[in-house]
Amino acid sequence: MPTTNYPQIDPLIVDLGDRSYSIFIGSQQLAYSDLSVHIKGKQVLIVSNETVAPLYLETVTNLLHDKHVDVVVLPDGEQYKNLDTLNLIFTKLLEQKHDRGTTLIALGGGVIGDMTGFAAATYQRGVAFIQIPTTLLSQVDSSVGGKTGVNHVLGKNMLGAFYQPKAVIIDTQTLDSLPQRQFSAGMAEVIKYGLISDYAFLQWLEQNNDSLLNRNPEALRYAIERSCINKAKIVSADETEQGVRAILNLGHTFGHAIETFQQYQGSLHGEAVAIGTVIAAHMSHFAGWLSKSDLHRIQSIFRSFLLPVTPPVEMTSTDFLALMGRDKKVMDGRLRLVLLKGLGQAFVSSEFSQEDLELALNNACGEL
Amino acid sequence: MPTTNYPQIDPLIVDLGDRSYSIFIGSQQLAYSDLSVHIKGKQVLIVSNETVAPLYLETVTNLLHDKHVDVVVLPDGEQYKNLDTLNLIFTKLLEQKHDRGTTLIALGGGVIGDMTGFAAATYQRGVAFIQIPTTLLSQVDSSVGGKTGVNHVLGKNMLGAFYQPKAVIIDTQTLDSLPQRQFSAGMAEVIKYGLISDYAFLQWLEQNNDSLLNRNPEALRYAIERSCINKAKIVSADETEQGVRAILNLGHTFGHAIETFQQYQGSLHGEAVAIGTVIAAHMSHFAGWLSKSDLHRIQSIFRSFLLPVTPPVEMTSTDFLALMGRDKKVMDGRLRLVLLKGLGQAFVSSEFSQEDLELALNNACGEL
Repeated sequence: MPTTNYPQIDPLIVDLGDRSYSIFIGSQQLAYSDLSVHIKGKQVLIVSNETVAPLYLETVTNLLHDKHVDVVVLPDGEQYKNLDTLNLIFTKLLEQKHDRGTTLIALGGGVIGDMTGFAAATYQRGVAFIQIPTTLLSQVDSSVGGKTGVNHVLGKNMLGAFYQPKAVIIDTQTLDSLPQRQFSAGMAEVIKYGLISDYAFLQWLEQNNDSLLNRNPEALRYAIERSCINKAKIVSADETEQGVRAILNLGHTFGHAIETFQQYQGSLHGEAVAIGTVIAAHMSHFAGWLSKSDLHRIQSIFRSFLLPVTPPVEMTSTDFLALMGRDKKVMDGRLRLVLLKGLGQAFVSSEFSQEDLELALNNACGEL
Repeated sequence: MPTTNYPQIDPLIVDLGDRSYSIFIGSQQLAYSDLSVHIKGKQVLIVSNETVAPLYLETVTNLLHDKHVDVVVLPDGEQYKNLDTLNLIFTKLLEQKHDRGTTLIALGGGVIGDMTGFAAATYQRGVAFIQIPTTLLSQVDSSVGGKTGVNHVLGKNMLGAFYQPKAVIIDTQTLDSLPQRQFSAGMAEVIKYGLISDYAFLQWLEQNNDSLLNRNPEALRYAIERSCINKAKIVSADETEQGVRAILNLGHTFGHAIETFQQYQGSLHGEAVAIGTVIAAHMSHFAGWLSKSDLHRIQSIFRSFLLPVTPPVEMTSTDFLALMGRDKKVMDGRLRLVLLKGLGQAFVSSEFSQEDLELALNNACGEL
């Protein structure tokens, strides 16, 4: 298993036929990127937020000296991921007379990536876009898979499109400026890849806890790359989530319920996913699919990356059940959940017992 | 050429690979449609407006007795084709807990079709939808081609997606309740198909002016079917408008400028297209591509269907030029226009002379 002195690697290719694209990962990507070669036209709109723009906007703009660059800086936070904020992007594009040949660049975390991708998918029925994710969460999750969208007051990510970027550029140095809580939230999704389909990676994460928390650049690059490879493999097999792709949502149905309950202003997405995954693990244990020691190992790894493993105290199992009815994984009234048949083996089921579900929720909410 | 007693015909198939669908055209389609067979799940949301719902909502709902049917009735008019009204559809879907297996039915004209299609394209990243267009314009235009979307205050149809319906059901009887002005506006798009690629159809339209204006059901069915066939042929060749499909926009760049100038509250879309087509015909004539007699024939056929052929008096050529700069057919700063090389022969060009453009606009605006 790799530890230091990783060789310079080729970009990772996400294979989606004529929508294939490359992910460039490294610790100096922004300083030395050939960003311009991925842009066909002359017009570019960089979409960023108030937190990220002061840090990296100038660097990115300098890479585009041969383009006509406009910028829109949005407020920072999940609570702004809605149609009103999306409209700020459209207004800027129209005011600056951007045509169908324009390219949008998402510079920021998952919220910026999701909104910019959705804006690109729908502006004049589709223009090019490039992702420059600057948080660990967006680097390992939203930069692969083509899911774009915004929230509705009645549910998270309810409006959106599947839309692929032309390229993704990941500079691990941007993580140096990331607050610890945000970093840990990103680790929740990294751990998820190990849990759903890559047991060897899960072991590596347990063993490299320290170097990752210390943000060792090589360890980070390896963790991000392996996460993206795992996700790309699943997405290539099922781009629009008709089947297997749904396993990527391990912990997300419970997690979304938490985020909706808190109106996106309490837990970070990754924190909610960590809590949700532990609930799913409990449920898998109650159903007899996961051993007690594996359950404890899951709780331990999340804790070791400084993540929460229990829901906010004010939430009840009744709150969970009500909010989960609106999840996108509901099909003709049947809730589908991602559960575990062991470490590294996730599966999707609507055949679970309601009793196990309620037991897991009662347990999580301290109602037992 | 057909006149009466048309045989019962098979549905028209729009060939788009795995996104292919059928268009059913006839004078009793709503009374006898097997609407339910085109719907996979149990949930249905019918989207209609205040004008159409009182006329046909009950008929359509009765066809769906084996489904769970919800309804949202929107205000009627192009000025409501925006993100705010779109959000009313999303809110209804979420309040009624519609999942990814739901089907949206657009019952109304082009505005309802465009908004419902866009809502279907983006609700939970894509659900099924069916079109039941009730105006002539939407029957011959927006029911084929998969263009969906809404307007932005800075430009018409600027936000949207390419998204195909599962089926289109056209009942020519719904045209009996259509006001004359709306009917004529629809004829503008019918005439357009003759002008761009079907000279024989143009001749037929000239010869059947009376029976169409009297809404003879067989003449209507033939005109609608031949329009849809023409459009389907072009769309199948170029689904996302990379090339040839753009000829369908004959008259539309000028027409959109008129509609934007009037903030969508003056001319009907078809009226604006009629005026725009006559401007494009003048420009083609000034460029030496279209004879004077063909130009006059174009003006005559629009007039014979009670359509306007000159812009609103308050509009100047300067207004046109400013508004056309924001058209979707602009590519890297070059405006592309659809022009005529004769009757039935449209082509797209960005190589026209600016002088011919300004001459045509000066002429149209009475500035010569």
